[in-house]
Amino acid sequence: MQQTMFRIKDPKVSLDFYSRVLGMSLLKRLDFPEMKFSLYFMGYENTAEAPDNPVDRTVWTFSQKATIELTHNWGTESDPEFKGYHNGNSEPRGFGHIGITVDDTYKACERFQSLGVEFVKKPDDGKMKGIAFIKDPDGYWIEIFDQKTIGTVAEAAS
Amino acid sequence: MQQTMFRIKDPKVSLDFYSRVLGMSLLKRLDFPEMKFSLYFMGYENTAEAPDNPVDRTVWTFSQKATIELTHNWGTESDPEFKGYHNGNSEPRGFGHIGITVDDTYKACERFQSLGVEFVKKPDDGKMKGIAFIKDPDGYWIEIFDQKTIGTVAEAAS
Repeated sequence: MQQTMFRIKDPKVSLDFYSRVLGMSLLKRLDFPEMKFSLYFMGYENTAEAPDNPVDRTVWTFSQKATIELTHNWGTESDPEFKGYHNGNSEPRGFGHIGITVDDTYKACERFQSLGVEFVKKPDDGKMKGIAFIKDPDGYWIEIFDQKTIGTVAEAAS
Repeated sequence: MQQTMFRIKDPKVSLDFYSRVLGMSLLKRLDFPEMKFSLYFMGYENTAEAPDNPVDRTVWTFSQKATIELTHNWGTESDPEFKGYHNGNSEPRGFGHIGITVDDTYKACERFQSLGVEFVKKPDDGKMKGIAFIKDPDGYWIEIFDQKTIGTVAEAAS
């Protein structure tokens, strides 16, 4: 399982979110000028270990597990008519979310809050204490949890 | 990046697809009877190494990278009114696909074809030779590529 792709409106905003807020790195950018789109592969990999040669870097990127592929169709970021992308959690439903493991959900969420991140569910909302959902800049949901508490949270369902 | 979640109509059909066709294993099933849904975590992990105790197995599952979380809202599989889930690639767009690395895209696609898998794009269709897209039972797109050819395919964009 190498990648999960979703479309983004503005790469400047999304790259800032996925790197500064979520701590990922830009593994590789690919530009397709004829088709007017760019791909931004994000992930928790050490890019210092990545090759410098652009093609080798592409192969390296496609060899990493669990990357996020952000697709930017050029122009959406400045198009006043663009209505934004659908996150799959309202009708018509389908895709739900991606999920990221943190060391401590509560501490991570305090940090997200201080950074102004929008929450779908704070860790103490609802039944599932210790699990949170935040939104990325396009409104896609990201589940936040830690391995310390996930066993307790999901105990009855296990 | 631990998980990518999407909703499925029928777990029997999807589990068969993700295990028999794509070669994943069921890492863990979680049932939430009060909320009438089940989660099926699929991945390329060796489940022989997984703990037997159900809660430990849940924690183990949530410790694996790059899993697919299939969410089954009970009843959709037998509901004649259920219209299916939205794969994000027609309006309203958003989520695009997941992507899986194989040893040889052409050989993998021959096998998919013999198993009756539906294609969005065969490896030699269009410009991007050597990359294929198939559909899962709910219509979600899955990109198929190999590391031997991805560098060539994406060379101009690199």
